Amino acid sequence: MTITTPKGFRAAGVAAGIKKSGGRDVVVVVNDGPSAAAAAVFTSNRCEAHPVTWSRRILEDGVASAVVLNSGGANCFTGAFGAETTELTANRAAELLQLQPSDVIVCSTGLIGSGDEKFRQGVLTGVKLAVAELADDETAAQHAADGILTTDSVAKTALREGTGYSIGAIAKGAGMLAPGLATMLVVITTDADLESAQLDTALREATRLSFDRVDSDGAMSTNDTVALLASGASGTAADEGEFTSLLVDLCQDLARQLQADAEGASHDITITTTGAATEDEAVAVSRAVSRSNLFKTAIFGNDPNWGRVLAAIGTTDAQFVPQQIDVSMNGVMVCRAGTPDAPVDTVDLTPRKTAVLIDLHAGDATASILTNDLTHDYVHENSAYSS
Amino acid sequence: MTITTPKGFRAAGVAAGIKKSGGRDVVVVVNDGPSAAAAAVFTSNRCEAHPVTWSRRILEDGVASAVVLNSGGANCFTGAFGAETTELTANRAAELLQLQPSDVIVCSTGLIGSGDEKFRQGVLTGVKLAVAELADDETAAQHAADGILTTDSVAKTALREGTGYSIGAIAKGAGMLAPGLATMLVVITTDADLESAQLDTALREATRLSFDRVDSDGAMSTNDTVALLASGASGTAADEGEFTSLLVDLCQDLARQLQADAEGASHDITITTTGAATEDEAVAVSRAVSRSNLFKTAIFGNDPNWGRVLAAIGTTDAQFVPQQIDVSMNGVMVCRAGTPDAPVDTVDLTPRKTAVLIDLHAGDATASILTNDLTHDYVHENSAYSS
Repeated sequence: MTITTPKGFRAAGVAAGIKKSGGRDVVVVVNDGPSAAAAAVFTSNRCEAHPVTWSRRILEDGVASAVVLNSGGANCFTGAFGAETTELTANRAAELLQLQPSDVIVCSTGLIGSGDEKFRQGVLTGVKLAVAELADDETAAQHAADGILTTDSVAKTALREGTGYSIGAIAKGAGMLAPGLATMLVVITTDADLESAQLDTALREATRLSFDRVDSDGAMSTNDTVALLASGASGTAADEGEFTSLLVDLCQDLARQLQADAEGASHDITITTTGAATEDEAVAVSRAVSRSNLFKTAIFGNDPNWGRVLAAIGTTDAQFVPQQIDVSMNGVMVCRAGTPDAPVDTVDLTPRKTAVLIDLHAGDATASILTNDLTHDYVHENSAYSS
Repeated sequence: MTITTPKGFRAAGVAAGIKKSGGRDVVVVVNDGPSAAAAAVFTSNRCEAHPVTWSRRILEDGVASAVVLNSGGANCFTGAFGAETTELTANRAAELLQLQPSDVIVCSTGLIGSGDEKFRQGVLTGVKLAVAELADDETAAQHAADGILTTDSVAKTALREGTGYSIGAIAKGAGMLAPGLATMLVVITTDADLESAQLDTALREATRLSFDRVDSDGAMSTNDTVALLASGASGTAADEGEFTSLLVDLCQDLARQLQADAEGASHDITITTTGAATEDEAVAVSRAVSRSNLFKTAIFGNDPNWGRVLAAIGTTDAQFVPQQIDVSMNGVMVCRAGTPDAPVDTVDLTPRKTAVLIDLHAGDATASILTNDLTHDYVHENSAYSS
């Protein structure tokens, strides 16, 4: 089990006809308390979807008791009608669950610009169907995990056990993965008894070290939401250090699952920059490499083209001397101190898991970015998706 | 004719065995004066190739009488040996042409990390062969244009006639095209009589409005060089305004030729942002869209997916209100004031020339970025190139 493992939570995922596939597309997760503490992190894209605007506002008080999520439409750039759809969605859930609309988080995922009358009716019908099916068992949790998927090939879930409490999560995301969150929806539940401010601090630390370091294709979404709800039903006031540590671990687990399911990818690449002057600079260097289409196509071709790594590093402001940089791929140092080292044909890039290690020799900081290669399948899936 | 049309210039391009294809790979361009005024703009990539470091230094005095260019190897990250190769190249040309080595610009293009003994001998042999063939006719200009090509499918040249003088150019570049120069080598000759400071000012304005606005694949090169040499042989002290205007026009012509020959592309996309608060913000918005792999794959699929345009705009700091943005594709407004407008199936994206127009409604500034779509052929060519 996942989101229904922590005490005090029920969930459901139903098919309401929004997805063309006929699959589950509306999910409701309810926190039955006794606490209703909540926190969330949203996309930093300035063009945000209506559900993001709504949820950001209603979470200002740190209280939420339910999350409604739909796949099959992003409800982004859908005008006043779209904003009204989000509000009606919260109203409908609140009415059925005897809550205030301002305690209902709303999340949508799918094509930008989609959110017409048919979409609205699908979501509203779905909320009713889902509320009727709410349960705290494994099947309910699985249906919820399935109901938020779009181009994902597998459901993503994670569970961690703390001292006297647990943390469960469901996630979706398979492309448009970039910083300021990877493109995704994540719902995390816990029965630990923590205040919303404590949840917020822990969640920001966890997303900073996990989802913010997935950069599959450099494209930032309009709908990203990571919501954390705490029921307090375990009666355990969790140690904040332990809770944060478990939350970081859980989010990193989910981040790896997102990377592994990235659209069309054939390599899961971890780009680690070490010897950086600061952690921010290590992130910047790894991210610059992860954004290079030339690097990403080379890895697809199993070509340890370290020149493309250095060309990407050179676009950053990080502290380094080019003639001191080492680059290793899958354990083989192909560039030492800015000159060719081991023959490139000694590098085996055929495994899906690929490691690039950059040593800037400029300090002690280290950070990794998770990315993917750029493949024919990526081009195919993203040129054929949508209209 | 092109670079040999302005009086006072000779050129040659020869095959010296550096390129595996056996094609022309070493080019020499000589300015016979009477003036030796010169200016150049180089890559802003901090990991720059040895020839860039050399040429930047020897041009500090605004004087150069020859350019040696090679394809088949970038001589970048090749250590002290590579730096010595560049110096030996300048020495060899200077000796044969009775110049100072510090008056010889050197440019290389090809794979990063390539620049071994065989490469060095190829370049040095090529310089000797080329100097022996120097001529001021059309054939010589054509051989020079051919000799700098790598993955280019066609030679790029341009010519403009001023009042009493002319400006000619050859260029290479077919990928790794991004700001802080597109990846390329360009040699521009003129017989106008201008000081190096005047050339420098005109060249910076021209590159800012041309090559800096080509962003084919977001990847910045280590070897970019645009060199401008003025012989003064026309005896005409050109009007600076006219000269700059012609130079801008010539460079924009070459920029369009680079875009049209981008590796694997099936669409030449002009992304124009209008109604921006400043020109810089118009550039930033157009560039953000040009960097979105999701947008680029959609165009490949002839899919007018305007949501991906807006998602990219939202990653910038430019002034705008999302709900006021209009987006048109090939003349059809698909998003008006942040909501769906014309049906997407009324947009015809089958022509290679594609226009995306974004109106931010935030001011009066306009700027365009030239980019390409992301295709199967791009992935193929860049995963198969090199080792």
